[in-house]
Amino acid sequence: MVFVTRRERFNAAHKLHIPTWSDEKNMEVFGKCSNPNWHGHNYELYVTVKGNPDPVTGFVMDLKRLSVLIKEKVINKLDHKNINLDVDFMSGKMPSTEVLAQAIWEQLADEITAAGGHLHSIKLYETENNFVEYFGTL
Amino acid sequence: MVFVTRRERFNAAHKLHIPTWSDEKNMEVFGKCSNPNWHGHNYELYVTVKGNPDPVTGFVMDLKRLSVLIKEKVINKLDHKNINLDVDFMSGKMPSTEVLAQAIWEQLADEITAAGGHLHSIKLYETENNFVEYFGTL
Amino acid sequence: MVFVTRRERFNAAHKLHIPTWSDEKNMEVFGKCSNPNWHGHNYELYVTVKGNPDPVTGFVMDLKRLSVLIKEKVINKLDHKNINLDVDFMSGKMPSTEVLAQAIWEQLADEITAAGGHLHSIKLYETENNFVEYFGTL
Amino acid sequence: MVFVTRRERFNAAHKLHIPTWSDEKNMEVFGKCSNPNWHGHNYELYVTVKGNPDPVTGFVMDLKRLSVLIKEKVINKLDHKNINLDVDFMSGKMPSTEVLAQAIWEQLADEITAAGGHLHSIKLYETENNFVEYFGTL
Amino acid sequence: MVFVTRRERFNAAHKLHIPTWSDEKNMEVFGKCSNPNWHGHNYELYVTVKGNPDPVTGFVMDLKRLSVLIKEKVINKLDHKNINLDVDFMSGKMPSTEVLAQAIWEQLADEITAAGGHLHSIKLYETENNFVEYFGTL
Amino acid sequence: MVFVTRRERFNAAHKLHIPTWSDEKNMEVFGKCSNPNWHGHNYELYVTVKGNPDPVTGFVMDLKRLSVLIKEKVINKLDHKNINLDVDFMSGKMPSTEVLAQAIWEQLADEITAAGGHLHSIKLYETENNFVEYFGTL
Repeated sequence: MVFVTRRERFNAAHKLHIPTWSDEKNMEVFGKCSNPNWHGHNYELYVTVKGNPDPVTGFVMDLKRLSVLIKEKVINKLDHKNINLDVDFMSGKMPSTEVLAQAIWEQLADEITAAGGHLHSIKLYETENNFVEYFGTL
Repeated sequence: MVFVTRRERFNAAHKLHIPTWSDEKNMEVFGKCSNPNWHGHNYELYVTVKGNPDPVTGFVMDLKRLSVLIKEKVINKLDHKNINLDVDFMSGKMPSTEVLAQAIWEQLADEITAAGGHLHSIKLYETENNFVEYFGTL
Repeated sequence: MVFVTRRERFNAAHKLHIPTWSDEKNMEVFGKCSNPNWHGHNYELYVTVKGNPDPVTGFVMDLKRLSVLIKEKVINKLDHKNINLDVDFMSGKMPSTEVLAQAIWEQLADEITAAGGHLHSIKLYETENNFVEYFGTL
Repeated sequence: MVFVTRRERFNAAHKLHIPTWSDEKNMEVFGKCSNPNWHGHNYELYVTVKGNPDPVTGFVMDLKRLSVLIKEKVINKLDHKNINLDVDFMSGKMPSTEVLAQAIWEQLADEITAAGGHLHSIKLYETENNFVEYFGTL
Repeated sequence: MVFVTRRERFNAAHKLHIPTWSDEKNMEVFGKCSNPNWHGHNYELYVTVKGNPDPVTGFVMDLKRLSVLIKEKVINKLDHKNINLDVDFMSGKMPSTEVLAQAIWEQLADEITAAGGHLHSIKLYETENNFVEYFGTL
Repeated sequence: MVFVTRRERFNAAHKLHIPTWSDEKNMEVFGKCSNPNWHGHNYELYVTVKGNPDPVTGFVMDLKRLSVLIKEKVINKLDHKNINLDVDFMSGKMPSTEVLAQAIWEQLADEITAAGGHLHSIKLYETENNFVEYFGTL
């Protein structure tokens, strides 16, 4: 079993803000992340696929194909977008890095299986100091 | 003459969009950066001050003091904000990285002079692939 | 289960030196790390906490709170200090990166539990070429 | 159990090309990686060894010794070489990152055991966007 | 005057080898860089353009357009190629980083002028430890 | 004219502390950098040499030779040392990054001239957030 990882990036706006809460409560829980007029990040996404290398090509999965798949299902929907407003697969969800990583897993898992791979993990950096990892329903 | 540099970071939303233009023209000129619902970045700011090291302390300028000054005049106004809507010193300006770097220079130059230093340059990264530098009115 | 990680940094001096050994033996085992007058590093610390995201906030653990906790229990005691001489929780211990990572775990595990989280791992970089990871008593 | 990691680097040429296939098929499967006249990379190799820190030295394994071992068995054979043509332990193998990581494991596992350590993983970056990990025959 | 920079990357093979010299002399002067079967690098290229930001768009030069130009004139000719054998604009030249940076300048300077910009510098990383900069015929 | 740069690294201890000042004044001016028992850093040093590439080798200066020279005159004296106590060329000097960069210039300028090169600048990182540059007596 070998694990191969592809990095992709996207730049997006979001806010952490619960509409049914007061501004004070949003500020207390989410701090400056609740700024009503949004803020944004350069996100870095690492998608890891596992499997045995093909005996002929030496590939677990063609990373060019994985890259195209990530772009179609994830990056094109998130890059230069507002995560709260513009992204179908985040509709009605809190755009924390944790929830976003789980939603990206849902976008990719079946697609990668259909392409002959097996999704192992999603790692998502919000800043150089903060990141999350998700391995599916362990 | 020695040049000392302090890095600070901020996360902000913006869009490149001219209201008097049609959506088509905005898209043609600014591409996905014109997304009406904003996008955002992790900006990295490098502020360089020049001078002769003090013969006693060995400092061109106390970087702790420079850091406080940058935070007060720049970071606190930009971090987790919308550059188009929330930032007084960017009001009425196009929030391109070029214009933002020039505006940050204006925020800092006199303050650094008052603190006994001499501002040399502003370097501002929007992404790992794109950055600008400004040296004042050469 | 989602894993969230916070990076913090500290700059410290140390030496790897066993007082009951001769200088020759210290040099043989620890090489230049045994320099009697100390040397130092910019350490990078990654603290990973695991859990299920809160259904309302989307957080496994508030990273601002985790950051405060790491600063109080670890960074403030290590930053700009001598690990051999100044750090209560390293007293009498060899300040190798391995032992330091284990001691940081001890500093944080119960505090994170008390804050409603679950410490998963400590990752500690001594240089860009050398780092260690500790997952508690597996 | 603590995990210690040493990073080493090498610069090498390779191509992904199956001689019994037509140029068209090689291009279709391997894309620009099949360029007949080679291309190359700055590879980054992370070797992770696990164990309990020695109660006297605080070391899982002396990283200086690990570094020497990696250089002798891996780096000296790969650095500034052609992976397809010059590297004995890759002879007859497809020089994909996956296969190369597995071959590096074979080069190191017994040597590290003989030195009193226990190899845990090989992580190999081909570019900043592509890397693989191998943990032996799990 | 503001300076804007775009980073692009390419992976290529090369060797530093003078055919009219003996292997011994090549090894003496170029060391392992003279390996007959080539080696390679992940090059990082930084192209800096200078000018005054357009009063309407805030751009010194559209970085999307600059990126396309760099890809057409430089990256597509170098990426996954052999610099000694495959690159028209390096034909008959020593593929040192210095000479390559100068040749990239020649590829881009007039094109950038035609696009309304002014090329300021080429910065080219061969490894994380070695890079060169060229500012034209100062 | 082309500028070539070599990066080298060293890990050292220091403190910013003026013995004739009270502890209070040292703390007021130098903050935690004045900790009596030292602290330390992973320094990164960039040495830039300028010149015209040799028409035969394509080199401004052989970077292997430059690397050896930097190691002999600078790194071997600083790495795993105490800058206040162990380094001959810093004796009696305040070990600020500014003063250290100037002293490294003095160590290297004539040596590089003797080797046929021309020293252009010394860039020295103390942390990822703080660095200085020195260009000699401009």
